[in-house]
Amino acid sequence: MSRFFSEKFSALTPYIPGEQPRERTYIKLNTNESPYPPSPIALRMARQAAGNVNLYSDPTCQSICKVAAEKYGIDADEVMFTNGSDDILNFAFMAFCDERHPVVFPDITYGFYPVFAAFNRIPYETIPLQDDFTLRVEDYVGIGKTIFIANPNAPTGIALPLCDIERIVQGNPDNVVVIDEAYVDFGGKSAVSLIHKYDNLLVTQTFSKSRNLAGARLGMGFGCKALIQDLNTLRYSTNPYNINSVTMAAGIGALTDEVYFMSCCRQIKETRAWTEKELARLGFETLPSAANFLFARHPKISGKDLYLTLKEKGILVRHFDDARITDFNRITIGSKEEMETLIQTLEVLLCEK
Amino acid sequence: MSRFFSEKFSALTPYIPGEQPRERTYIKLNTNESPYPPSPIALRMARQAAGNVNLYSDPTCQSICKVAAEKYGIDADEVMFTNGSDDILNFAFMAFCDERHPVVFPDITYGFYPVFAAFNRIPYETIPLQDDFTLRVEDYVGIGKTIFIANPNAPTGIALPLCDIERIVQGNPDNVVVIDEAYVDFGGKSAVSLIHKYDNLLVTQTFSKSRNLAGARLGMGFGCKALIQDLNTLRYSTNPYNINSVTMAAGIGALTDEVYFMSCCRQIKETRAWTEKELARLGFETLPSAANFLFARHPKISGKDLYLTLKEKGILVRHFDDARITDFNRITIGSKEEMETLIQTLEVLLCEK
Repeated sequence: MSRFFSEKFSALTPYIPGEQPRERTYIKLNTNESPYPPSPIALRMARQAAGNVNLYSDPTCQSICKVAAEKYGIDADEVMFTNGSDDILNFAFMAFCDERHPVVFPDITYGFYPVFAAFNRIPYETIPLQDDFTLRVEDYVGIGKTIFIANPNAPTGIALPLCDIERIVQGNPDNVVVIDEAYVDFGGKSAVSLIHKYDNLLVTQTFSKSRNLAGARLGMGFGCKALIQDLNTLRYSTNPYNINSVTMAAGIGALTDEVYFMSCCRQIKETRAWTEKELARLGFETLPSAANFLFARHPKISGKDLYLTLKEKGILVRHFDDARITDFNRITIGSKEEMETLIQTLEVLLCEK
Repeated sequence: MSRFFSEKFSALTPYIPGEQPRERTYIKLNTNESPYPPSPIALRMARQAAGNVNLYSDPTCQSICKVAAEKYGIDADEVMFTNGSDDILNFAFMAFCDERHPVVFPDITYGFYPVFAAFNRIPYETIPLQDDFTLRVEDYVGIGKTIFIANPNAPTGIALPLCDIERIVQGNPDNVVVIDEAYVDFGGKSAVSLIHKYDNLLVTQTFSKSRNLAGARLGMGFGCKALIQDLNTLRYSTNPYNINSVTMAAGIGALTDEVYFMSCCRQIKETRAWTEKELARLGFETLPSAANFLFARHPKISGKDLYLTLKEKGILVRHFDDARITDFNRITIGSKEEMETLIQTLEVLLCEK
């Protein structure tokens, strides 16, 4: 830390992203990326856009907002795009939380929420998930705080039905409820359909998982016009050109290529079902997942040990140093071949135990 | 504004970026972009990287930091990359300014500084440039505030010599001095050479102007290891993957292709000299520019009128609604052909006056 660093940030503990090692090639099952390349349409549009990057991108993101609006049956001013969905989540913490509107989210969820709260100096509280890692809806109804819920949740993969989401949104009419749908396309039910009904609902999605664009950085937010306007006020006050033109083109391509999108999601779900069965055969317990990962533990090996052993063998999974979930590892659903290698490796490894 | 928008931002006036019209093709001389396409090496690397965007980019930006470090003769932890240079400027406002470290910058300078200050709720003060729009160095020595200086300045184009920058940095040992070198490659002298000498110096640059990558969004910051570490703490607390992998590849290409970079800068400087002479012939007064634009006024036509008339004729320049500079327009140096069209258009237009 330099001697100039403002006191207001001196106690900040930054988010620690999953490992992105460059020194060795791993089977990467640790950051929930798609094992499939971007859609050919997205790729063609991105490469074409690259030729004109000497000119600024459109700060209003007009073209991609129009494509998204048509696709989701909403108006173009009810959607916005950001540099990954972390960007819009951070804007939501800024815009809709303060001393008078503290924040609440589950104790086990996306690890960036407490960082955003600390960064924006917003008081926050966590509500423990139940013993089976499900969320008790009643805990959130009428709580009178700004709520962040990942649905499906990470790292558990467990999804809430849409009627439960609606109860929470309806039960907090004076607070914004943010539904973070990073993983919704793998088995969850999106709340985008509710944005015309509730002015306090913000839904965020990402192109990093089901749309195969993690490295392009594109996030998307849906809400009533006034909520989107607030978030755009912050975007225009920090980085109006935050979406580069190559990513914007790739995003339009990815939204357009529905056939490829559906096929990738279907393959992930099939491979998840296969992996789940195989893990069960090896004695793993997995939580019911509606995401592109499985959260798994084994009675014979600790979470940390399994993570380290797999890493040594060239397979990266994600382990979290948190007492309640330390037995688990979060395993991304990769290609069928990658998951076969994982299962074979686990089989050998467990025999040795 | 929604009824949920936090009071702390309710009075915020966002930055207004230069027009990026999509409905008509203009000769765009309003946002200081390069008229030349990205370097062929940058383009090839970007297009190649696009194929792998299903995987996250490297949040540590290791490869591009290494390339920059070699190029500038510094260590890899003395440089960082952001999503455009607005991103790093905002981080610098956050990191090095607060109630106890208020901010100061010239009255006529980059219009985003007051927005960043307001957004981060930091008290700021502006110091008027002299009547000839030059900066009086004495005004800044020993001022005891965090200082932001664009060098060359925008929209004037006037550069400070490096010895003056050094006097300001040296004269404020207990405050960070940020030198915003967005336009330095067109005739200024960079302060990067001073970062080993002063621990309170932060230098920012952009790939949007001299490196032909405005639409890719890439900014760069140089400072001692501790300053860069502070800024990275904020980056990791908001958006660790803020640089997408296509832009990172393009940036490496642009830094590598020195020949193309030099040739683009040389052409801009030649065209600037030609345009300056032609404008003088038509009766314009221009400020001495070390940037890729000219700040010009004409005794016979108001700044606003000239801007509107040129727009009607298909040429966009930038006019600022600020009393001290309302007579002027900022005219980006485009290609020789574009500037010839501008001069011909002005010639006709002034004849009609």
